Amino acid sequence: MPRFKLPPRLPFRRLGVAGLGLIGGSLAKAFMPFGGLEISVFDNNPETIREAGRIKRLARVTSDPDEFLSWPLDLAYLCLPVRRNIELVGRMGRLGVPFPVTDSGSTKGPITEAALSAGLNFCGGHPIAGKEVAGFGHSSADLVRGCLFLLTPDQRFGDRQRELLGRLRNLHELLGCRVRLVSPSEHDRIYGLISHLPYVAASALAGTALEVGGPDILSWVGTGFRDTTRVGASPPRKWVEVAMENSENLSGYIGDLMGVLGRLRDLIADRDEPGLAGLLEEISSFRRRLAK
Amino acid sequence: MPRFKLPPRLPFRRLGVAGLGLIGGSLAKAFMPFGGLEISVFDNNPETIREAGRIKRLARVTSDPDEFLSWPLDLAYLCLPVRRNIELVGRMGRLGVPFPVTDSGSTKGPITEAALSAGLNFCGGHPIAGKEVAGFGHSSADLVRGCLFLLTPDQRFGDRQRELLGRLRNLHELLGCRVRLVSPSEHDRIYGLISHLPYVAASALAGTALEVGGPDILSWVGTGFRDTTRVGASPPRKWVEVAMENSENLSGYIGDLMGVLGRLRDLIADRDEPGLAGLLEEISSFRRRLAK
Repeated sequence: MPRFKLPPRLPFRRLGVAGLGLIGGSLAKAFMPFGGLEISVFDNNPETIREAGRIKRLARVTSDPDEFLSWPLDLAYLCLPVRRNIELVGRMGRLGVPFPVTDSGSTKGPITEAALSAGLNFCGGHPIAGKEVAGFGHSSADLVRGCLFLLTPDQRFGDRQRELLGRLRNLHELLGCRVRLVSPSEHDRIYGLISHLPYVAASALAGTALEVGGPDILSWVGTGFRDTTRVGASPPRKWVEVAMENSENLSGYIGDLMGVLGRLRDLIADRDEPGLAGLLEEISSFRRRLAK
Repeated sequence: MPRFKLPPRLPFRRLGVAGLGLIGGSLAKAFMPFGGLEISVFDNNPETIREAGRIKRLARVTSDPDEFLSWPLDLAYLCLPVRRNIELVGRMGRLGVPFPVTDSGSTKGPITEAALSAGLNFCGGHPIAGKEVAGFGHSSADLVRGCLFLLTPDQRFGDRQRELLGRLRNLHELLGCRVRLVSPSEHDRIYGLISHLPYVAASALAGTALEVGGPDILSWVGTGFRDTTRVGASPPRKWVEVAMENSENLSGYIGDLMGVLGRLRDLIADRDEPGLAGLLEEISSFRRRLAK
């Protein structure tokens, strides 16, 4: 009988993380406790790389993408902003890198198409985790441990991807994540509606308060405004890219939201109390199904 | 020299609280530690009254509004739903009650007009405190202690109100509240924008998710949707009343919000990246001024 608990069997031994932002940094930190896993990282912010260089647990650290791509890796995990992930995928295709690739971006359609064109062994991923701040300094293993984790296979990649998919599922289950599969296009429809649209709604609400009330309106606010606009405080750079990548779904959903708002406005302007109560009752009982 | 610290000088000795919901219950609980303050309560829910009857610190408890109005009080503090407060104000006018009156409702214009017509010595109030649940069971002193507290005087009430206003300021400062004064109509414009509109926006967003995605969409959501729709989980009864009382301001602001959403939609549909980035940068730096 073994005297010690066996370490988990790792599906990859040499992991390369590109991008030590909030998500990449959190994933790297969450993977660090696994003995036998060699973690190497790339980020183009020299300050982040200096900070990462002081972490003994990291095998290699670089701010040069070509150096990153030359390392012997079992998996490249792309956690850069969506469009920079896509650029890196193109470069990997041109170099013909030998290792499989995944990513953690918030849109899945465009990067999947890019990986397919580049001829990579690729399967996209998306941890459902985030906060309204960015950067390695805010990252933490707890952000991604135990989260809902989506993998977005596409049958056009064939058998090779099926094998990769199994190993990626295993890897994230080691972090306590609940793994679900969804196609890239379905992912972008779902998260356009429940992630990108809430960001736009929160920003539009904050923008309305600023335009109508002026900057000093903030001195009056309570928790309702605070909660409802919280994601609107996020650095917009990421969201601008996401909106561009998911423009068609998102612009349609904004129109849908404007339609619901228009109905609420008409009920309120017409003082149609039973009509308003009926619609709000239906919505609030739906929302209450989300446990706290 | 006194051997003990003197108790705070109370501006009222006999306090009557009408309505033991989330806010009325929290205010009653926050006032309980003040020795020498006699607290009597009315609520028309017999179960709430049974529960309140077990609290030794309460001098009198009733579910009969006429009994409440017959008690010797120094201040009646109305914490019923807005419209029931207004009904009670009318009844007080007809009875010619001798004591001054305040309230904690979320709209201030209509009750101020009602109190003026009723010939009461009245000054409205509004604690900026809340959560997405209702009822005495969820109330707590901490909800109102230290909150921003608005008093909404109206010069048409004359000198008598000025004296009441000073005592109400004093009373709420004893709870650690930061007291600010604002006219009833200005209050309703400000809170239409930063409280009633966020509720409508949160509800519209949840309603869009339900309509477009169906009820099962909730199994995919992360913190962005959760935060942005949180106030939409509130029981709608209160909000329906608020929307009816503040219908003109609120329906105008919903139109403003639809305008901002329309601009965001057009920038996204046209893939106008610099335009979108510029607008979102302005909004997010405004929102970030709200410290966490």
